[in-house]
Amino acid sequence: MNEIEQLTQLLAKLPGLGPRSARRAVLYLMKRRESVLAPLAQALADAATAVCTCRECGNLDTADPCAICTDPRRDRTRLCVVEEVADLWAIERSGAFSGRYHVLGGNLSALDGIGPEELRIEPMVARIESERVGEVILALSATVEGQTTAHYLADRLAASGVAVTRLAQGVPMGGELDYLDEGTLAAALAARRPVSG
Amino acid sequence: MNEIEQLTQLLAKLPGLGPRSARRAVLYLMKRRESVLAPLAQALADAATAVCTCRECGNLDTADPCAICTDPRRDRTRLCVVEEVADLWAIERSGAFSGRYHVLGGNLSALDGIGPEELRIEPMVARIESERVGEVILALSATVEGQTTAHYLADRLAASGVAVTRLAQGVPMGGELDYLDEGTLAAALAARRPVSG
Repeated sequence: MNEIEQLTQLLAKLPGLGPRSARRAVLYLMKRRESVLAPLAQALADAATAVCTCRECGNLDTADPCAICTDPRRDRTRLCVVEEVADLWAIERSGAFSGRYHVLGGNLSALDGIGPEELRIEPMVARIESERVGEVILALSATVEGQTTAHYLADRLAASGVAVTRLAQGVPMGGELDYLDEGTLAAALAARRPVSG
Repeated sequence: MNEIEQLTQLLAKLPGLGPRSARRAVLYLMKRRESVLAPLAQALADAATAVCTCRECGNLDTADPCAICTDPRRDRTRLCVVEEVADLWAIERSGAFSGRYHVLGGNLSALDGIGPEELRIEPMVARIESERVGEVILALSATVEGQTTAHYLADRLAASGVAVTRLAQGVPMGGELDYLDEGTLAAALAARRPVSG
């Protein structure tokens, strides 16, 4: 296998790229050696050495503890629990949360053999107790696994006295009602709120 | 900009990846440092040094002239003219051609200011004369630019005595007639062939 095939096979492993788009990417890279290929090789090597997992929250960053955990302006009384780093980044992009995070590393799943020990649940409980967190926001997927995990965590935290909340379910921004599934509509109807006028 | 953002921005430039899928790719890579990230960084560096453009045909390979040009089993009397290296690779995957190739580097396009001097046309003419090519197969896109280029090349080669052919146009394999455009149907009908039975 030569260098072209090797590179194609590795690129095809990336999510969003298949064998065909990996070949296109290789040709793209070969046409732009100085402007893209060389910087990308360098960026990968840099990221491999610089990026680490935050020991506090599980975020990926170039510092450990990460920039969010060490930021004194973040509200230390609110802890947002997410499944994956991608979810943490998505909430950060929304700019709507000024507390800190805890990455579980996945969801409970009997089917995949993922029990509480496989997730970062005990470190979360320890943080909540030692850091005097007042509210835990469960920002988990609205799937069976996500809701199973949310119920487990709520039970686990019941005795600690911390307030446990979860994200609202309802109509997404820009969502058209006749394209929404029945479950979302039912949840949005059940959680209806008075119109402030 | 830290190493994560740098890597995300570079990955987002690849065809087939946008900002969202680039972020997913970064998280994927960070979870697989040993198995994917490090090998990918190495493969990019290897490809950058090892891969070059064949001076004969314009193919990308780790040797110059490329493995196709130097293969003694390839039919030297047939030359397949393609727009880009991607087209050459596509024909190679079909396994249906045993001659050699010539990569033009694009199509004639008055709109984009690409004239005959911008393409590797004169090297092609020189090869056809010096290598005693008997048939030139124009494997160009069935677009206005591709067909303009094909006509130009056919005119350019008219005096040389070489046979100039082009790919057949018709119904693609697995194609359903009522999904095909009118132009393809008309071309397939005009080029109809007797049924051998």
